[in-house]
Amino acid sequence: MNDNRPIGVFDSGVGGLTVAKEIKRLLPHENIIYFGDTKHLPYGEKSKEAITKFTTEITDFLVKQDCKAIVVACNSATSNSIDEIKQAANGTLVIDVISPVAKKVAYELHQKIGVIATKATVNSNAYKKFIRKYNRHIQVIQLATPLLVPIIEEGFRNTPVSKHALESYLSNKKLEDIDTLILGCTHYPLIEKEVQSIFQGRVKVVNSALIVVNELIHELEKSNLLGNTKNPTYHFYLSDYTENFAKTAKLFFGKSILLEEKQL
Amino acid sequence: MNDNRPIGVFDSGVGGLTVAKEIKRLLPHENIIYFGDTKHLPYGEKSKEAITKFTTEITDFLVKQDCKAIVVACNSATSNSIDEIKQAANGTLVIDVISPVAKKVAYELHQKIGVIATKATVNSNAYKKFIRKYNRHIQVIQLATPLLVPIIEEGFRNTPVSKHALESYLSNKKLEDIDTLILGCTHYPLIEKEVQSIFQGRVKVVNSALIVVNELIHELEKSNLLGNTKNPTYHFYLSDYTENFAKTAKLFFGKSILLEEKQL
Repeated sequence: MNDNRPIGVFDSGVGGLTVAKEIKRLLPHENIIYFGDTKHLPYGEKSKEAITKFTTEITDFLVKQDCKAIVVACNSATSNSIDEIKQAANGTLVIDVISPVAKKVAYELHQKIGVIATKATVNSNAYKKFIRKYNRHIQVIQLATPLLVPIIEEGFRNTPVSKHALESYLSNKKLEDIDTLILGCTHYPLIEKEVQSIFQGRVKVVNSALIVVNELIHELEKSNLLGNTKNPTYHFYLSDYTENFAKTAKLFFGKSILLEEKQL
Repeated sequence: MNDNRPIGVFDSGVGGLTVAKEIKRLLPHENIIYFGDTKHLPYGEKSKEAITKFTTEITDFLVKQDCKAIVVACNSATSNSIDEIKQAANGTLVIDVISPVAKKVAYELHQKIGVIATKATVNSNAYKKFIRKYNRHIQVIQLATPLLVPIIEEGFRNTPVSKHALESYLSNKKLEDIDTLILGCTHYPLIEKEVQSIFQGRVKVVNSALIVVNELIHELEKSNLLGNTKNPTYHFYLSDYTENFAKTAKLFFGKSILLEEKQL
């Protein structure tokens, strides 16, 4: 039995595309519906109440599109609103971007884990809570690095601007002596190499997209939900159509995607 | 006769505070109501339709608060939605941040004017249209510099990050041979000195806040609307309450301000 209903993925903007792209690569026979809440991006600066309102409306929309699973491809949404999102999902499988990573790092030999993320994610304290649920002996240090998303969105990767911003953030005293650094934002895989070059092998850098998609595959298998579509469709809904999103989505998914504006 | 009704000022976030602060300094006997649409910030990346919806709702709110004048302290709002804002103002005096600057530079001896601004402002072509309405012989070059707002918001002024970002933007071939540069975003006065140090006197840098407030004073005088409040109140409404806004507003206005969240 195969289930060819789509997998729903959402984020406030382009960041979640790093997760969606991994889904496309590792699950090439699945239809994907992506919702980018570009009208309200970035979530990283918004309050918990605002983020919860936006994300539960999106979840409701994806459930109505008959999604078999929903991937919350946004750390700010996960950390602030995962309980409300699960409630809105009403029994549909929900995979978030923090739990799978927390579980994985908690069972390896780490002593002091650093997390870089948006303000909303850091303020929620989510990584600390999630990791220490599995292993309460690990020290978890969270640092907000809010300039990294706009640096990535505006094409300043691999420039002196990204280099100096990363050096400034990563030389923060709080991160001294960490053995592992979690990239706690779905945008950050795009600057993974620059982060690694600053640490020069001294710190293990964890990119969560791959871990999250492995968890998705595991859960789909367990519940007999895997699909076998020969020509999958990739349908993108945006709450505010912008050229920037369209360009990035096409860069990640090729030109044969459906893109439309959708008010909730 | 004095009119002590408040002056309404709005922006998507903290940028408009540079204008509000000039109003407070030059018109110390006026009450001010400031609306920061933090739920939808930044406007610079949103579509015209979205910006028009948000800004006409705010205008309607300020009219209902009995404001005697409304200052649109946001270039993205002015450039995309000024006609709709004026319609929503329903006869209340509206001052925007582009027309006064356009009029001023158009009547001075410039040949090639550069404008740096958000994407929304540049895409709207507003500076070019407004300036050439007064003087069609001036060449107007507009350049989107979207990373500057987050650099300012995140405290990276006067660092290698702002220096390299400005050098990268301002060395753009399009800006070659300009004699004047307009800071076309209400955030940019905060990095005026850094911009000037890159041009080293070769280019005249125009900070619009002062020009806009002079226009406001002129219009209030003309219509007999000046106030004489001894202890003016500064009331801040935010569509999404964030610590960042509260901190910045207090930095600009002192601690004795009223701050409250307001859904429209």
